[in-house]
Amino acid sequence: MSTPKIVILGAGYGGLLTTLQLQKKLNYNEAEVTLVNKHSYHYITTWLHEPAAGTASADHARVDLDRIIDMKKIHFVKGVVQSIDPAEQSVTLENGDVLRYDYLVIGLGSEPETFGIEGLREHAFSIRSINAVRQIREHIEYMFAKYKNEPSRTDYLTFVVGGAGFTGIEFCGELADRVPELCKEFDVDPELVKIYNIEAAPTALPGFDKELVDYAMDVLTRKGIQFRINTPIKQCTPEGVVLATGEEIKAGTVVWTGGVRGNSVVEKSGFEVMRGRVKVDEYLRAPGYENVFVVGDCALIFNAEGRPYPPTAQIAVQEGENCGENLVALVRGDHLKPFVPNLQGTLASLGKGEGMGIIMGGKKLFGTSAALMKKASDLRYLYKIGGVGLALSKVKL
Amino acid sequence: MSTPKIVILGAGYGGLLTTLQLQKKLNYNEAEVTLVNKHSYHYITTWLHEPAAGTASADHARVDLDRIIDMKKIHFVKGVVQSIDPAEQSVTLENGDVLRYDYLVIGLGSEPETFGIEGLREHAFSIRSINAVRQIREHIEYMFAKYKNEPSRTDYLTFVVGGAGFTGIEFCGELADRVPELCKEFDVDPELVKIYNIEAAPTALPGFDKELVDYAMDVLTRKGIQFRINTPIKQCTPEGVVLATGEEIKAGTVVWTGGVRGNSVVEKSGFEVMRGRVKVDEYLRAPGYENVFVVGDCALIFNAEGRPYPPTAQIAVQEGENCGENLVALVRGDHLKPFVPNLQGTLASLGKGEGMGIIMGGKKLFGTSAALMKKASDLRYLYKIGGVGLALSKVKL
Repeated sequence: MSTPKIVILGAGYGGLLTTLQLQKKLNYNEAEVTLVNKHSYHYITTWLHEPAAGTASADHARVDLDRIIDMKKIHFVKGVVQSIDPAEQSVTLENGDVLRYDYLVIGLGSEPETFGIEGLREHAFSIRSINAVRQIREHIEYMFAKYKNEPSRTDYLTFVVGGAGFTGIEFCGELADRVPELCKEFDVDPELVKIYNIEAAPTALPGFDKELVDYAMDVLTRKGIQFRINTPIKQCTPEGVVLATGEEIKAGTVVWTGGVRGNSVVEKSGFEVMRGRVKVDEYLRAPGYENVFVVGDCALIFNAEGRPYPPTAQIAVQEGENCGENLVALVRGDHLKPFVPNLQGTLASLGKGEGMGIIMGGKKLFGTSAALMKKASDLRYLYKIGGVGLALSKVKL
Repeated sequence: MSTPKIVILGAGYGGLLTTLQLQKKLNYNEAEVTLVNKHSYHYITTWLHEPAAGTASADHARVDLDRIIDMKKIHFVKGVVQSIDPAEQSVTLENGDVLRYDYLVIGLGSEPETFGIEGLREHAFSIRSINAVRQIREHIEYMFAKYKNEPSRTDYLTFVVGGAGFTGIEFCGELADRVPELCKEFDVDPELVKIYNIEAAPTALPGFDKELVDYAMDVLTRKGIQFRINTPIKQCTPEGVVLATGEEIKAGTVVWTGGVRGNSVVEKSGFEVMRGRVKVDEYLRAPGYENVFVVGDCALIFNAEGRPYPPTAQIAVQEGENCGENLVALVRGDHLKPFVPNLQGTLASLGKGEGMGIIMGGKKLFGTSAALMKKASDLRYLYKIGGVGLALSKVKL
């Protein structure tokens, strides 16, 4: 039998961790591993709210792949996936190249879910990539600069964050931290700057512990965030948003964090999906294709109560590791191990030195201790993918 | 006789130097001096091409007025002049306040002269104030960020600089220096970035020594600037510019440096003007009003050959000093001294460490020696307005 070809699509958490497992565990010539990614870097999606607000550089939230991937062991292809043909066992890239595989790992990440809200796709930004967050940061700064030349346009100084999930809450924390700096740089009266967080659900951070939610809202309210909870956005326009209540908020910047769905390439390639995500089996395989694994935001798995796990970095990392190990097992004819999520708590930052969350064992953390534990968790991830050197070079204390 | 009221409009070169003369030379209660300015800071107009390109911070090009003005001696009013009534001897501000004067100094600076070119006022930026250049800098950065999210829009990476006078040439030098940094920050291929300098006159820097003009164009061409000399802009649109040749250049950014005219408040107040500038007498007084002085870009004076002096910082500074001295003389009943420009050469920067120009005595300078002499001249100005401390705090070596 010839050397099996493993193709991994996407170098996000899931795809990267799969690749790193293979890089570590496979012996020379056991398999031919190809990693396809749009960029030559991996980015730390859970940090993107910082460069989006401008409180950290975009470079801080990314890692060049050649720093963590051994390009002698892994064949890296910089390209954009156009479609997957699971019957033909091939992947077509936008440049026309076709890659054949014996085993495929789909880790193509997510797209914003706009729930059909009119104008959101056209007029709102999303915190979804390095390129996207650089534009958000520049857009925010541009609004301050423009305001100074058109002082009647106070709407330039109004920011709407749609969604009070983790990304929306964390972005609000960073934006509130950035505003005083921007006001100083552009000579703007801080009283004129408004940040609205708008959430359709009856609570911020739906499903999260109430005491922690209250803490987060209290911290952010004191930082100047104005919450509109239980208030759906009806429409997004070039001028701002219209709420279901009829209220119009004129805003120069709308950032949508209200939800994600799986990458549309998956659905377009004929896989059966729910909100773009493939309901995978216990080994993370797509139904009907024993050689196609799905990890990260494209994968849909359910907990014991039959509720889907949210698409988090934590689960994507664990899926990637499981998938990598199972691919090694397949190559060697060993047994597969089912994927069992090991939830280790959830921490949210609320701006510099502030945070809240639950750690393993269910203990709640608030304030600086939560912020510190979040840094520790970030450090652990960096250490996992790039060793001590990467961790030390990136951590912001 | 009651204490004479002196009102100075504008804290640009002319108004500031007038004020500083009065601050230095008048004794307590000899006159009541009021300085009116739109901002609480003075800016160094001849440096604005740097923050516009982003090679220096905007703060670098401004000085808080309370750092150089003794607010116990000078009454400072932060306000915008709406109109002057020379018959009533009063000035009305936009907020409705009315200031009466015995002596008035008009130093209200300039506005862009668009020569009737369609769309220029609406769609082009001008290097005219701290607020304006912050917007130019942010706009440039925003174009790079936007391009990365819409890679077909290479026009976002095209920059048109209208006018190859001093400001246009110096801005091109800075922008060419900034581009590699921006390409690095935003992962943009430098080959995609285009900078056009477009000048209607048959030469860049009209009226300047040909050898120096050739040197400047050579330096900038090697930095990647594409010149279109002898090529008027016919129209500016939201998409770029259309040249008189019919050629259309699609560009995300158009910066117009092609000319200035005096502040329109002067004309609207009934003074006789040529391109917004008042043809003043030998004591810099407006025709018909012995108590109204005009300094800087609002003043029009002619040389021995009957040609107008260009509106430069150098002349504005000298006018301010002369005007201040003459006001002291008037207050004391002394004779006025006619204004005689003392031209001390002209130096242009061409980006970091590069420049060219003529110094006193007619000697031509090129390259680093020109750049150094320009720094020396900047230092001299800062020393003049704010002493050693200011000079040391601001000079960028």
